[in-house]
Amino acid sequence: VSERILPGAARPATVYLVGAGPGDPGLLTVRARTLLDACDAVVHDALVAPELIALLGARPRPPEIHFVGKRGGDDASASQEAINQVLVSLARAGKSVVRLKGGDPFVFGRGSEEAQVLAQAGIAFEVVPGVTAGIAGPAYAGIPVTHRGMATAVTFVTGHEDPTKPSAQTDWPALARSGSTIVLYMGLRRLPTIVRALVSGGLSPDTPAACIQWATTARQQTVA
Amino acid sequence: VSERILPGAARPATVYLVGAGPGDPGLLTVRARTLLDACDAVVHDALVAPELIALLGARPRPPEIHFVGKRGGDDASASQEAINQVLVSLARAGKSVVRLKGGDPFVFGRGSEEAQVLAQAGIAFEVVPGVTAGIAGPAYAGIPVTHRGMATAVTFVTGHEDPTKPSAQTDWPALARSGSTIVLYMGLRRLPTIVRALVSGGLSPDTPAACIQWATTARQQTVA
Repeated sequence: VSERILPGAARPATVYLVGAGPGDPGLLTVRARTLLDACDAVVHDALVAPELIALLGARPRPPEIHFVGKRGGDDASASQEAINQVLVSLARAGKSVVRLKGGDPFVFGRGSEEAQVLAQAGIAFEVVPGVTAGIAGPAYAGIPVTHRGMATAVTFVTGHEDPTKPSAQTDWPALARSGSTIVLYMGLRRLPTIVRALVSGGLSPDTPAACIQWATTARQQTVA
Repeated sequence: VSERILPGAARPATVYLVGAGPGDPGLLTVRARTLLDACDAVVHDALVAPELIALLGARPRPPEIHFVGKRGGDDASASQEAINQVLVSLARAGKSVVRLKGGDPFVFGRGSEEAQVLAQAGIAFEVVPGVTAGIAGPAYAGIPVTHRGMATAVTFVTGHEDPTKPSAQTDWPALARSGSTIVLYMGLRRLPTIVRALVSGGLSPDTPAACIQWATTARQQTVA
């Protein structure tokens, strides 16, 4: 990225798109920990464990903390633009920014959209992958997502899309037949519709299933 | 787990089934780092980055290191039994063991088989999830595995299974139609057969594809 720097203007700093992992602070990566210990600003949403944010206050010089939470997702496009704007403004002010996202930034995290915005704005960025809840939540519940001879594939799929929409991108009947372990992210709201789509697509109603809330935190709840 | 302890016998110690992440030592989790700094023995295979093992030698009291590598996979069932035996023996000798596995222990890592063996032997174990190469490798190559409006699902599938076998567990044609990003683990050897199965199952031959080797290490190579 080459840029003209105005005399006296702050040089845009790097934005780090960082996966915070699924909740347990022990599942943060070493790289994420290092960046959180050194950055000027942290921009996070509601999916990041409160314990992680609380730890930032213990730094000798705590970073600026920007909460840009949204929940539920579907009506959040305006809000995503606001988040993009916060990232660009902080970087242009010369502040190194950790954009902290629950799980992994590129797994249903809209991290790729933020990366596009930063690239278009000529701001350097780095992606730091994280442990995704779809693997770790089941592991904490004693459920391996793959097992030799039983599950040779695992699919992560967003539960935000309505499977009855004609424009639905996921082919649920095909997924039902794929032989894959299916992990729904944010699947609670549309669960009945999705289950109907899978069963009518050929998935046996006897298929073992579990529902996990607050994955890997002390509050994790599992219903099998 | 309740056990009778013979007088003078060492109490079996815990075995930690730990994901080492995809290669970059910065993608190790904080919990994994802590366990590696404190354990008595490390049992690892060829998929764990050499840099991580080298770091263990720098400990004031380095742990025992057991290499139980295997590559290629298919003829490794005897070897898996030998690995299980190493884990059980070390734990019964009272040594805390980190079983370090590339990526995540429950994603094509046979970690769930080792967990079963430990449970049957009455040995306490803990699973520490890791960053999986199927997310991090593409991220380091600039490829998000999901993107709003383009990919609402991602499937991780082992490339070890021959798709032309009548007993194949993965339904490749169904996977081809699922609309999911498809990430093949260890897919190089059977790549031509798998690609044919996907294309004859309906996946467009124009589908963008990338091949990633040595994900997230300094040696990472990507062919798109």
